[in-house]
Amino acid sequence: GNLVNLFTDEIYPAEVEIENGTIMSISRIEKGVKGFIVPGLIDAHIHIESSMLTPSNFAAASVPHGTTGVVADAHEIVNIAGMQGFKYMLEDAKGVPLKFFFTAPSCVPSTPMDTGGAVIGVPEIREMFGLGAVALGEVMNFPGVISGEEGLMQKIAAARESEKPVDGHAPGLTDRALDTYISAGISTDHECLSFEEAWEKAEKGMIPMIREGSAAQGLEMLSGLIGRTHTFLCTDDLHSGDLLKGHIDSMVRRLLAMGKDVFDVLRAASLLPALHYRLNTGIIAPGMSADFLMVDDLSDFNVRAVYINGKKAAEDGRALFSVHPRVFPAKIVPPVLTPDSLILHPPAGFSGNSLSLRTIEVRDRALYTAEKKLKVQVENGRIVLNGNEGENGDAAFVAVVSRYGTGKVGNGILTGTGIKRGAIAMSIAHDAHNFIVLGRDENEMHRSLSLISKTGGIAVVDGRTEQRLELPIAGLMATESAETVAGGLERLHRFTENMEITLKSPFITLSFIALPVIPALKLTPEGYFDVLRGRVVSAFPEPEDNEASHR
Amino acid sequence: GNLVNLFTDEIYPAEVEIENGTIMSISRIEKGVKGFIVPGLIDAHIHIESSMLTPSNFAAASVPHGTTGVVADAHEIVNIAGMQGFKYMLEDAKGVPLKFFFTAPSCVPSTPMDTGGAVIGVPEIREMFGLGAVALGEVMNFPGVISGEEGLMQKIAAARESEKPVDGHAPGLTDRALDTYISAGISTDHECLSFEEAWEKAEKGMIPMIREGSAAQGLEMLSGLIGRTHTFLCTDDLHSGDLLKGHIDSMVRRLLAMGKDVFDVLRAASLLPALHYRLNTGIIAPGMSADFLMVDDLSDFNVRAVYINGKKAAEDGRALFSVHPRVFPAKIVPPVLTPDSLILHPPAGFSGNSLSLRTIEVRDRALYTAEKKLKVQVENGRIVLNGNEGENGDAAFVAVVSRYGTGKVGNGILTGTGIKRGAIAMSIAHDAHNFIVLGRDENEMHRSLSLISKTGGIAVVDGRTEQRLELPIAGLMATESAETVAGGLERLHRFTENMEITLKSPFITLSFIALPVIPALKLTPEGYFDVLRGRVVSAFPEPEDNEASHR
Repeated sequence: GNLVNLFTDEIYPAEVEIENGTIMSISRIEKGVKGFIVPGLIDAHIHIESSMLTPSNFAAASVPHGTTGVVADAHEIVNIAGMQGFKYMLEDAKGVPLKFFFTAPSCVPSTPMDTGGAVIGVPEIREMFGLGAVALGEVMNFPGVISGEEGLMQKIAAARESEKPVDGHAPGLTDRALDTYISAGISTDHECLSFEEAWEKAEKGMIPMIREGSAAQGLEMLSGLIGRTHTFLCTDDLHSGDLLKGHIDSMVRRLLAMGKDVFDVLRAASLLPALHYRLNTGIIAPGMSADFLMVDDLSDFNVRAVYINGKKAAEDGRALFSVHPRVFPAKIVPPVLTPDSLILHPPAGFSGNSLSLRTIEVRDRALYTAEKKLKVQVENGRIVLNGNEGENGDAAFVAVVSRYGTGKVGNGILTGTGIKRGAIAMSIAHDAHNFIVLGRDENEMHRSLSLISKTGGIAVVDGRTEQRLELPIAGLMATESAETVAGGLERLHRFTENMEITLKSPFITLSFIALPVIPALKLTPEGYFDVLRGRVVSAFPEPEDNEASHR
Repeated sequence: GNLVNLFTDEIYPAEVEIENGTIMSISRIEKGVKGFIVPGLIDAHIHIESSMLTPSNFAAASVPHGTTGVVADAHEIVNIAGMQGFKYMLEDAKGVPLKFFFTAPSCVPSTPMDTGGAVIGVPEIREMFGLGAVALGEVMNFPGVISGEEGLMQKIAAARESEKPVDGHAPGLTDRALDTYISAGISTDHECLSFEEAWEKAEKGMIPMIREGSAAQGLEMLSGLIGRTHTFLCTDDLHSGDLLKGHIDSMVRRLLAMGKDVFDVLRAASLLPALHYRLNTGIIAPGMSADFLMVDDLSDFNVRAVYINGKKAAEDGRALFSVHPRVFPAKIVPPVLTPDSLILHPPAGFSGNSLSLRTIEVRDRALYTAEKKLKVQVENGRIVLNGNEGENGDAAFVAVVSRYGTGKVGNGILTGTGIKRGAIAMSIAHDAHNFIVLGRDENEMHRSLSLISKTGGIAVVDGRTEQRLELPIAGLMATESAETVAGGLERLHRFTENMEITLKSPFITLSFIALPVIPALKLTPEGYFDVLRGRVVSAFPEPEDNEASHR
């Protein structure tokens, strides 16, 4: 084919000879040939768990799009299951041609206040490097870097000793705080909120990534990086339905359609991340793995065939390998509780008929929440939510229930979802991945939870109807294919629309309600957590909860 | 100053804040400032020993030119003194601000046929990595790579395990042989004989370096690499006199004068080698060493001041640090021999008055030699050379005398030097660095050798006059400054001109006569060595020496 050479920005007819999966030689040939030989594409930062697919099922959906390598941070499963979870990802990845380059999650737990199943320290980081981790995963705890928090700095030092790069995650960080963060040796960032922020990071030697996933979408904003400084392409989080439509190839197509130079675009999609993370994919050169695509034409960028280790792994959009996902425990201790324990109750001894309380307000597609006040009716000693509470009448009970058998349940009220009836329960709730349950009625809430409290998954209940997606792998991932999972999720979404939920991605929004590192008010099994004050707060604001009175 | 930003190809007024030698922050400033802040320059491949200076004295001469880092292969001293020699280089380098990034010599000895003082195996390579070596040094034994020689492949594997790059040295290698060489994981080459060769190497993912040293000069030939593919700048071998005139800064100036883009040129001179070898120099970014230059103007590229680790290390062409070179043994067992043993004698029992023998013919500035036949007169049982022998009447005796106390002396005849009288002796003779002695008269030869047979060095003798440069550090390096050594060499060169030597660099040419890996005929303490046949051959070609008669 016509080799697209990213070292020298040339395209010429060439023959690539392969032996035992490795490129042995590359020769220019005279005769005209059709099609283009393009290096395998790399997703430079992704959490596989967000697709709810196991690595092997992820591979079956992504390889047909030309992906030959992913730099994957196994942050979610490691929060639940520690080293065992990390090893599961490695094992399940082994059975398929797609190359998974895992990073060692740097921030597990997200904060000592979180309630997950694992603590990853320096010894575990070193063990992961020993198992082939290519980098220290995104250092989300940027305040910890700036304040020089000892445990975190030791993990970064361990990475540098092992000559592994350290990935960043520092949305909005700028000026001296950014300089301090970079000084620690953190070399990439995929969380830029503006082009100016990305450019400042580039000027200071970081590699700002262009991220276009199911959640955050920055391709248009950051496309100006292409050709002007080093950048990588990544998705961060990609849902099965979106993955079926395209992966890094979609980003390439869109950048080419914007008129970007094909060599610059493909370098960001292959050579540059391959060199940075030292990956044996995404580079066409003697001695490298024979991982490449055959593309009909460089503007449509239609991926005709994908070769990994010299073998055809996909053709015309179909994977040519079979998938046998490995099993893993749900990592759940099924909670034993009454419906009553899932809803918020007035404080002991309360005898009035109305009550003022704290609520969490969410906005669609935002991870930040607001703390709001709400007045509710109390009847027979119970808080009543009947569709009139809150700005949109969508105030609902929310509970976070320990999946680790602590018996703890945090109760609160959530507004902003649009929910009018029914209940949702999930075993995905960042980063500890406890159960989160939402609803107006404690019995529906209890039923939705009980649908997933052994196997893990997502369940929705509305009256007598129910719908469920089982996620038996650590309560995060299904064993089915992308098509099946996407179909299941689609049904769940339609179900939530009937419940009048107005959020575009209700499951994602809900999954961040429990993350105690993003302001303002969150909910953990310990109760409401005020992120900026860094402590658990009561649902019922008393004078002693008033910050001013404490100072 | 005006920061020359090589990440984003911008120049803007900026303030760089430094603390404890490290860049803490970089801020754009409004006010106009004079001068340019440029990253420290890197020589990406050099043998310090060729300058006959210790690392510390080398530093004093190179830092004023803006060099802040050198990737140095300690190949020469390690051939003589093994690990002890490597450690000496590290130790002597410690006392000066210039950053020496040593590589672990991969090919010691050059061949099992060589007669040096050390054998470097995998354990020594690993030890050097432990001591901070940044790469496996140039793999000169490319036939060994292509044939998959076990010991060599193990060294390459050791480098890859330690995540260290492997440097190449493969002049003229092309097509499939090149592919095999690259497949081994060898990522650079500084030995390209043509632009086409360099371009092929670039297309196949190697980084071809632009080399402009005292010996090989490829800047004009390879300048077209700049901006079109990755390249580094290097000198390989640089003599003290040339070093005093300029280092990487000279290459930068010449490339800028050719109209090359300043960002592309400076990237090859700093950022790209720094990233490849992971050096803490040559990059202006938070967390990196504060190593940079102040340059008045980007076309003259006049280096006004040089900062290393945040301290001014040179200003207006003068180093601001003092040098105290460390001592090291000459690593010589002074040979005890008669003048007679330095010249070639007819074979035992020979009784004729003329004799046909093999000679080595040299050409100026070429490392390759030719094997020639020469008829000489024999008087009183002794070979007579009186200025009429050979094409130019310059046939002279040459002897290679073991410096390691084996008592062995190899004798031969050399033509092509132009020598009419006098003698030269040196303790530099690649790669084993035995003594090499050249002359017509055995007594002059003996005198020249005796001038350096204890301390090491270069001596020339002509009648009653003599001149000497002492090289007491392993017989390779002086303890004096670049100015003193350059002056001494200049006097030696003038002396050889009086001896009618026509070679432009007689000492370099002589120093390669003993290297048994470059065809055709060489001389070791074992006698003539036929490189292509891979064996010692007699000076007197008899029928049994005829290759055809053996087959």
